[in-house]
Amino acid sequence: MPESPIRKLVPYAEQAVEKGVKVYQLNIGQPDLPTPKVVLDAVKNIDLTILEYSHSAGFLDYRQALAKYYRNNGVEITTSDLIVTTGGSEALSFVMGTIADEGDEVIIPEPFYANYNGFSTAYGVKVVPVTSYLEDNFSLPPIEDFEDRITERTKAILICNPGNPTGYLYTREELEKLRDLVIRRNLYLVVDEVYREFTYDDRKHISILEFEGLEDHAIVVDSVSKRYSMCGARIGCLISRNKEIIHTAMKFAQARLSPPTIEQIAAKAAMDTPASYFKEVATEYTHRRNVLVAGLNAIPGVECPMPKGAFYCLAKLPVDNADSFARWMLAEFEHEGATVMVAPAEGFYATVGEGKQMVRLAYVLEVEVLKKCLVILEKALEAYPGREK
Amino acid sequence: MPESPIRKLVPYAEQAVEKGVKVYQLNIGQPDLPTPKVVLDAVKNIDLTILEYSHSAGFLDYRQALAKYYRNNGVEITTSDLIVTTGGSEALSFVMGTIADEGDEVIIPEPFYANYNGFSTAYGVKVVPVTSYLEDNFSLPPIEDFEDRITERTKAILICNPGNPTGYLYTREELEKLRDLVIRRNLYLVVDEVYREFTYDDRKHISILEFEGLEDHAIVVDSVSKRYSMCGARIGCLISRNKEIIHTAMKFAQARLSPPTIEQIAAKAAMDTPASYFKEVATEYTHRRNVLVAGLNAIPGVECPMPKGAFYCLAKLPVDNADSFARWMLAEFEHEGATVMVAPAEGFYATVGEGKQMVRLAYVLEVEVLKKCLVILEKALEAYPGREK
Repeated sequence: MPESPIRKLVPYAEQAVEKGVKVYQLNIGQPDLPTPKVVLDAVKNIDLTILEYSHSAGFLDYRQALAKYYRNNGVEITTSDLIVTTGGSEALSFVMGTIADEGDEVIIPEPFYANYNGFSTAYGVKVVPVTSYLEDNFSLPPIEDFEDRITERTKAILICNPGNPTGYLYTREELEKLRDLVIRRNLYLVVDEVYREFTYDDRKHISILEFEGLEDHAIVVDSVSKRYSMCGARIGCLISRNKEIIHTAMKFAQARLSPPTIEQIAAKAAMDTPASYFKEVATEYTHRRNVLVAGLNAIPGVECPMPKGAFYCLAKLPVDNADSFARWMLAEFEHEGATVMVAPAEGFYATVGEGKQMVRLAYVLEVEVLKKCLVILEKALEAYPGREK
Repeated sequence: MPESPIRKLVPYAEQAVEKGVKVYQLNIGQPDLPTPKVVLDAVKNIDLTILEYSHSAGFLDYRQALAKYYRNNGVEITTSDLIVTTGGSEALSFVMGTIADEGDEVIIPEPFYANYNGFSTAYGVKVVPVTSYLEDNFSLPPIEDFEDRITERTKAILICNPGNPTGYLYTREELEKLRDLVIRRNLYLVVDEVYREFTYDDRKHISILEFEGLEDHAIVVDSVSKRYSMCGARIGCLISRNKEIIHTAMKFAQARLSPPTIEQIAAKAAMDTPASYFKEVATEYTHRRNVLVAGLNAIPGVECPMPKGAFYCLAKLPVDNADSFARWMLAEFEHEGATVMVAPAEGFYATVGEGKQMVRLAYVLEVEVLKKCLVILEKALEAYPGREK
């Protein structure tokens, strides 16, 4: 089991905090935006006498609400095309267990959300990476690179759209290329769409569920975590029109009995979040992104492409090793009593040696704090003994 | 992935309900007892603006509360000896992933909680059963039977105490035999103690954590689900004094980010449940058990040993196949507009052919309902075409 690059530095951060150092957490996608009031009110008004299990696929009324949500987003699915899961994490875990046996392979463009590694390893599934590059804004690598890696053990191609950790938003043309390939080679196309609401500059997210001809191939992983700033709820879902996939995934769902009850009630209430909430969120994230990315590129030696979605960016730093740098920032550095926690990007790559100079930053803190973080980063890069000459 | 015997009949039950038949659910361990008021009040009084992730090991204050709970129960552990999980289910899943690689073996006395199969299969772990028998009240099989099955791939012995589905409560002598064996053969001893509070006739549950010399061997799976009638919370934990186990399990914990936030707050509040609650619960379950077991044994051809703990019993029925019988009761039978859903016991066995005539019944409904269920069962057995001659 590989260690999570997002959380593995936590012990160092805890030590820093013990020493009285303020640690700004840009390592994890935990937004600081308030959870919509309708969600918290639903929790406060909960009317239960027994905190019972739900159906293993989730409460029916919540599944109905989800089907309506997707319908409003141009995707027609039924309540039996989806299973409510304990976070997007569990949906991914169910997908791996459902589509692959020990030794099977899944092709993933790298850098990718590091926990894909964890869920694959847990089921003995081999991750086959196709490298995308900072110089290309992490856009989809040539489709031939995917085709070249297909073997008789390949079960699926997995992408994250918009991308974590890249912030890249796939275009219709890119998705069509993937569609054609998975149909031709009879593979699953698994798409993690948990950041579907987070797109910028008037770009629109395109769900893989909108494409015709992919009914048997498309599997979507989703979650309410980021959409409604309710990461702690651990409510996600798995969607597929392929009945066999749902049938097998249900066995995994039944083995763990049910997703959390109260949090499903909260997630259902979240559906009534007013449109104004999302508008404010988009404005805020756009502002943060602009400040952070401009600020990063203004630091000598730092390179950071402009993300089109999600709330992450990947920055290349002028350091020997970004992992050592990130540790050093927590263990040995502080600027005016504060430091910054970032996620070393090496853990987002399956290819050994890739991403060594990169870190992922989540712009989940307010602009004034991000500005402080930029100063800290710049000072840290100046002071770091392993700075590239 | 094997199907859950506890939930696989759900579609038949749903059809029965659609036809207007009342279905009494004795198939699943979902108690009908109210969740303690302190728990529901804590949810109502929740004071959050952001529903954030918790620490991957669970909130520190909840881990402290858990450590105190175990101390009060005679077990000294620290907050770093435990990881809060999404139900006992996830704790079991983490244990399998932590102690075993594909192809490794875990020895389990059968019949056992069917989902042990699911979690094992998911990780490619082979379940090696040692059969216990209804005639012996499902007590621990001879320790030589365990020793005989140990190979170089054996990683652990797993028991459930008190037992689901057997209701058996292991004695100190039995646990000592297991202790000696796992020390001598250097295995883990994994004990599912989620029913630790449910013991009857003044018997006391003995935790494996009380035994000296087992520090590196003992792994306990626990959950608040049954203790506080809050199954829907999905809050459990994994406990071990073996630091390597906790270190590896933490990687699984980090991959799924965190257990549910609100439900952890609820679980912490549950610690303040007054002692009177448990006393009432014990009285109620004792009564139910006595009524159900006596009633079952009074039906011609039915045999059911007296459980000493948990809230299940296993009954042998005079039928050709208990699985067919259970389906038939839902699909084709009703008595005065109602029927009963039970869990066929075959799914609790790894040995093919064992348990064919048995069903598990959970005495989680009130006595008056259990009495109705007994009448329905008796009538069903009379009418069932596959009745043993």
